[in-house]
This record gives sequence, structure tokens and C-alpha cells, in this order.
Amino acid sequence: MIANSRTTRIEWGDCDPAGIIFYARYFEIFDISTTILIERALGMKKIEYLKAYDFLGHPLVETRARFRLPTRFGDEVAIESTLVACGRSSFTIEHRLSNAGALAVEGSETRVWVVRDPVDPKRMKSQPIPAEVVARLTHGGP
Amino acid sequence: MIANSRTTRIEWGDCDPAGIIFYARYFEIFDISTTILIERALGMKKIEYLKAYDFLGHPLVETRARFRLPTRFGDEVAIESTLVACGRSSFTIEHRLSNAGALAVEGSETRVWVVRDPVDPKRMKSQPIPAEVVARLTHGGP
Amino acid sequence: MIANSRTTRIEWGDCDPAGIIFYARYFEIFDISTTILIERALGMKKIEYLKAYDFLGHPLVETRARFRLPTRFGDEVAIESTLVACGRSSFTIEHRLSNAGALAVEGSETRVWVVRDPVDPKRMKSQPIPAEVVARLTHGGP
Amino acid sequence: MIANSRTTRIEWGDCDPAGIIFYARYFEIFDISTTILIERALGMKKIEYLKAYDFLGHPLVETRARFRLPTRFGDEVAIESTLVACGRSSFTIEHRLSNAGALAVEGSETRVWVVRDPVDPKRMKSQPIPAEVVARLTHGGP
Repeated sequence: MIANSRTTRIEWGDCDPAGIIFYARYFEIFDISTTILIERALGMKKIEYLKAYDFLGHPLVETRARFRLPTRFGDEVAIESTLVACGRSSFTIEHRLSNAGALAVEGSETRVWVVRDPVDPKRMKSQPIPAEVVARLTHGGP
Repeated sequence: MIANSRTTRIEWGDCDPAGIIFYARYFEIFDISTTILIERALGMKKIEYLKAYDFLGHPLVETRARFRLPTRFGDEVAIESTLVACGRSSFTIEHRLSNAGALAVEGSETRVWVVRDPVDPKRMKSQPIPAEVVARLTHGGP
Repeated sequence: MIANSRTTRIEWGDCDPAGIIFYARYFEIFDISTTILIERALGMKKIEYLKAYDFLGHPLVETRARFRLPTRFGDEVAIESTLVACGRSSFTIEHRLSNAGALAVEGSETRVWVVRDPVDPKRMKSQPIPAEVVARLTHGGP
Repeated sequence: MIANSRTTRIEWGDCDPAGIIFYARYFEIFDISTTILIERALGMKKIEYLKAYDFLGHPLVETRARFRLPTRFGDEVAIESTLVACGRSSFTIEHRLSNAGALAVEGSETRVWVVRDPVDPKRMKSQPIPAEVVARLTHGGP
């Protein structure tokens, strides 16, 4: 299974009047980590892999997060992201965000591979993840 | 237990290149619903109840969400929020967001009542929810 | 020229550690007001008018804002938006956001009507605003 | 006058259904650049310099931006930020954001040094920028 690690900085505009990060911002951070994880596995930027595999995206069907320690503006945090399951049309990623070595947030997300519904182009439907993508997500790549 | 219902509109700037809402925005929506739920129970705006009860806020310790149907810019959605548990220093709220009558997202969140740590003012610590607040959250109010 | 007025509430997650709104949020507020202004003039939601007139959107080419008074979470603000100029392929809107009757922010924005570039679909290009749209923006509608 | 350059990446969640960045995100990018510019001049993180100089922040009184070229998710952009004026209690910064060598956005912002109003702690008031800070902003530092 593939994994990825990156760092980012919590910024002033991410924080609320209590002086800590507004929790919705963590999901923006996790989404970026997931994008980078898949980009590295496929050897393409997201804008390219959406075209290469002709699909609409990999929206979430479920997410969970546990917030153990707050983070503040100026904190340099590390996010470790690991693909922990890859099914026929969905996959699950776990994120661990730590601050100064201490685990601050644990998140998990299940996403589904979707295409535009051929019957109703306003809708989207899940579809099997291409075998080549599954291979790269589960064995690393590109 | 208290409950609240409100509507909001998904906006262009909430949506991503797939044309659907960027999922992190749902947590902004849920946070607003929680604020309104507590404001109505306490009969005060958040800026007032933070002062009245001399605390820092009620940050999340855990959240979960299931995304059943996507929403798009222009969709008028309804959010029903219910307090489902109220402990000594934490409480749990469930949100159900529906679009044109269909359940689109289910979310749950557990929050903790925190004050500034007297020992280290940069930190915060949980504290029992005032009895008056517990009474209003669990029996309605003000 | 068309005009529109609406109210919204500044929320906890819109505010920064100084306890006031993080200024980037004002542009989200202005974008929503512009959308509503055009929707009302055309008698269609944005998702519909993008299709009806077969264009990509009306992104900004220029914006200015003056911040006169801060706003805080819980503040109910009013936004008045007026189309002040409508050219061949661009138009200008002015926004005035007030809080408790006092002018807090003045914003102006010039936007351009764009379509996907037929030569390079990754790019977009400006195009004359349809005469029917110009008529409705400048004389009210639908 | 001090200047700073950094790069960042436009992300999926920053972009709208037209596939380009939602323009309000540029102001989040500019705010981060301003913070970094001042942090480097003062040799302290923002959380530290707010305490060291005992003030509330440097909110905007005015901003302008010109959007010349759109940016898309995955674009690595460069932001050059320069202090162009420093008055008694306010200063002006210009930002130039470029994408693949082409100027995409020009922004300018005027900010004011504010403290909590001693008469009414809910309000804030401008105050002269400390001489030491002016020296570092205008001659570089720390």
C-alpha cells in the first residue's frame, strides 16, 4: 500500500477567535494530502490523471477524524497519509497529522471512483477503479 | 434534547471542478448549525455566551460524516441538528443535511467545553459544562 | 441598472484570532451577492443561466475593497449590490456591506463574460455579453 | 524596503466549477505572503511578534487586485511580495503572483497597526508602528 508524508503550516486565516485552527480546515489539508498521494502513485498531476482515466474524481463517501491536540497559526505540522484499503470502486486513506512530534489529528476517509452518469450527465455514478490504477495504488508506482 | 432546523444554499465558491460541493465546506455548515443550536438554547449569541460562561469555546474532539448524495451550487439544503448526548464536559450533536427531500449527508460531532489553562495560558483544558447550560441543552431553553 | 440587497451573518469560522472577520471571507460574500443579483435579473439560477447562455462564467478581472469597520462573529450584516457599468463583454458591480447601519466595507468588481476557447479547451476567452442579458442587467428583469 | 518570494500550489479545493481558482482564495495566499514577509523582517513568527509588540494585528484597510490569467489546480505559482510604503501607523504591500513565468495576478494591500481600544475592549484602534518595526520593515532585518 502506498504512503506519503508532507509538511504544511497552519496559517492565521485558518484559525478562529479561540486562536486555534478552525477544524474544517483539516479536511482541506487531508484532501491535498490525498491528491498528492495519488499523483505520486500515478506519476501524474490530478488535472492529468482525471483526463488520462477519463473520470470525474474521487469524492468522499465517509470520513472520520479525532482531534487530540489543537494546532495554532505558525505551527509546522506533518501529515502522514496511507492507503489502507482498495476495493473495486472505492479506497480508504488514513491521515495522521502531528505537531512538534505529537499526534494532533487522526483522520480516515473512504472515497469512490466516479464518472459522469451517461444517462443523466448532471449525475455521477461509481465505477470500478481501472486495474492499472489499483496496481499502482496498492503496489506503489508509477 | 434540543434540536434545530435551518436552510442554507450551496454556493459557486463552495463547489469544486467536478461541479459539486467541496466536502470540507459541509463542516463549515455543520459548525454554523451547532452555533445556532446552542445560541437558541442559551438565548444568547455565541460572542455573548462565551463571555457569560467565561470559556474559550467548544472545539471538536471527534467527527464523522457520511456523504450519500452530492450537492451543487444553487441547491437549497436543509440541516437538522439534534443534541444526542450531553456528558460532564462534552456533548454530541448529529446533523442531517437533505437536498430536495433526500438525505444527502449525515454528520456527528463530539465537542468539549474548554477554558484557558490557568497554568499555561497558551493551552486549553476541558472543564465541566455549567449545570445551567446542561439543563438548557437537555431540556431546551432559555 | 439592477440592484439587490440581502443580509447574512458573520460566523465563528469566518473570523480570525483577532476575533474579527478574516478579510478574504468578504470576497466570498460579495461573490454570492453578485450571483444572486444576476440570477434575479435573468430569472434563473446560476447553474441554469450558465447552460442557457452556454458560457463558462463571469470571473473577475479586477476588484477593490475598502474596509472601514471590522465585523465579528454573530454580526448580521446587510450587503447592497448595484450594477454600475455594463460594457460589451464586461460589467462592474459595487457592493456596500453595512453592520448595524454603519458602512463597514465597500467593494467593487469588474467581471468578464467568458467561454471555453474553441482553439484550446483548457483556456477561456472573453465574448460579448448576449444582448438579451445586457438588456436584463441594465433594465432589470426577467 | 523588504521583499519576499515564495511558491505555493493551487489545489483542487481552491478551484470552482469553471475549473479555475475561486478568486477569494488569492487573498488567503496574499495574507500568508504578508505574514511571512513580516516574520522574516522581525525574525519572529506572527504568534510571537503579536506578543512581543503587544498588538492585535495588522488588518487591511484597502486592497486591490487585477486578475490577468486564471490559474488551475496543480499549478505551481510564485508570489513576490514587496513593502512599497510604510507610514506612521499603516503600510502597503504589493504582491505579484505568476504562473509558469507569466504574471497572473497583481495585488496591493494597505494595512494598519491596531491595538485593543483601552476604552472599549471590544473595539480596536490604530497606533503608530513601533520605531524598531519600521526600521526592520524599511531596511530589512532582523
